Amino acid sequence: MSSTPTTKQRIVFAAADLFRRHGYAGTGMRQVVAAAQAPFGSLYHHFPGGKEQLGEEVIRVAGGMYGELVAAILDSGPDDLVAATEQAFALAAQHLEQSGWEDACPIATIALEVASTSEPMRIASAEVFERWFAALAGRFSAAGIAPESARELALTWLMLLEGGFLFCRAARTREALHVAGRQAAAAVAAALPPAAAPSRT
Amino acid sequence: MSSTPTTKQRIVFAAADLFRRHGYAGTGMRQVVAAAQAPFGSLYHHFPGGKEQLGEEVIRVAGGMYGELVAAILDSGPDDLVAATEQAFALAAQHLEQSGWEDACPIATIALEVASTSEPMRIASAEVFERWFAALAGRFSAAGIAPESARELALTWLMLLEGGFLFCRAARTREALHVAGRQAAAAVAAALPPAAAPSRT
Repeated sequence: MSSTPTTKQRIVFAAADLFRRHGYAGTGMRQVVAAAQAPFGSLYHHFPGGKEQLGEEVIRVAGGMYGELVAAILDSGPDDLVAATEQAFALAAQHLEQSGWEDACPIATIALEVASTSEPMRIASAEVFERWFAALAGRFSAAGIAPESARELALTWLMLLEGGFLFCRAARTREALHVAGRQAAAAVAAALPPAAAPSRT
Repeated sequence: MSSTPTTKQRIVFAAADLFRRHGYAGTGMRQVVAAAQAPFGSLYHHFPGGKEQLGEEVIRVAGGMYGELVAAILDSGPDDLVAATEQAFALAAQHLEQSGWEDACPIATIALEVASTSEPMRIASAEVFERWFAALAGRFSAAGIAPESARELALTWLMLLEGGFLFCRAARTREALHVAGRQAAAAVAAALPPAAAPSRT
């Protein structure tokens, strides 16, 4: 893969950034091409289905990358999944604040906007979320948690993250993500088999 | 208060419904007056600040009513806050499915859309969320939970609800809210003082 992004990639990344900050409906196609430094015609060349097709691509690409980022943060953290969870939420809160309270989940806003209005985009967001669940559940399973509990824990972990993003972006404080991190870490600790659970007292 | 809504109330309720389903940016002012069966001029008569002022009013009114609804569901449920929590999440999931996966949190979509683009609407959503935290924390405190833990529990409860709404609307299944309800109930049970905690085994 070339290190220089293609026009199509520039369009997708620019759209992902605009959709995350201004929402899907709140972003115009002219803004996208301006931010991507691409000619207007290239947009419909690469996305003949128009804005909805671009939205679907953004959800799959940005959502896919975010899932890999979350998994990588968990993997690169302490071996202890409890401490790695605390670290992941603390990093999310720090990054959110440093971005001026803009950079949270790249697809939550658009997923809520389109859940009742665009079936292709709703399905794309559902598939991305499902991949996140599977990726996290896989890591929890590998740590000795039974599959059903691992899936429940993955959903819990990500619901706390998404709820935390919502409240932190509104309040412009880190409080909710700090609470979310503590609660997610506690849920991980409670789910780990006794031999794998580190002492946290 | 009269039982017949005023024109202003009809506009706010119609806008709240449209914003929740199509988002703030995705809703046009003409759609609002059509749904409210109000003359177009009445919109700017009641909201001289235009769409942003209407959005702020919708957040405060719809968000305020939703907070009262959540508190009322908790109050009308079993005395046991653990069982009442499970019931509240089950009702939320049931209502969401029955509405065709549309009726979730009335302000989460708009709160995410405007967090980086409208300071008056961001502040309105932050104030509404803060009132929800205080209302739930008050109930948890009354059950014997220390104030700091009661606030943390209120945030956790509501982050799980908001995260659950996001994933359930995308997937069109109740799974995430069922998991959220179990986890919120477990968090309540863990926070209650021993004398108040019912046996759940």
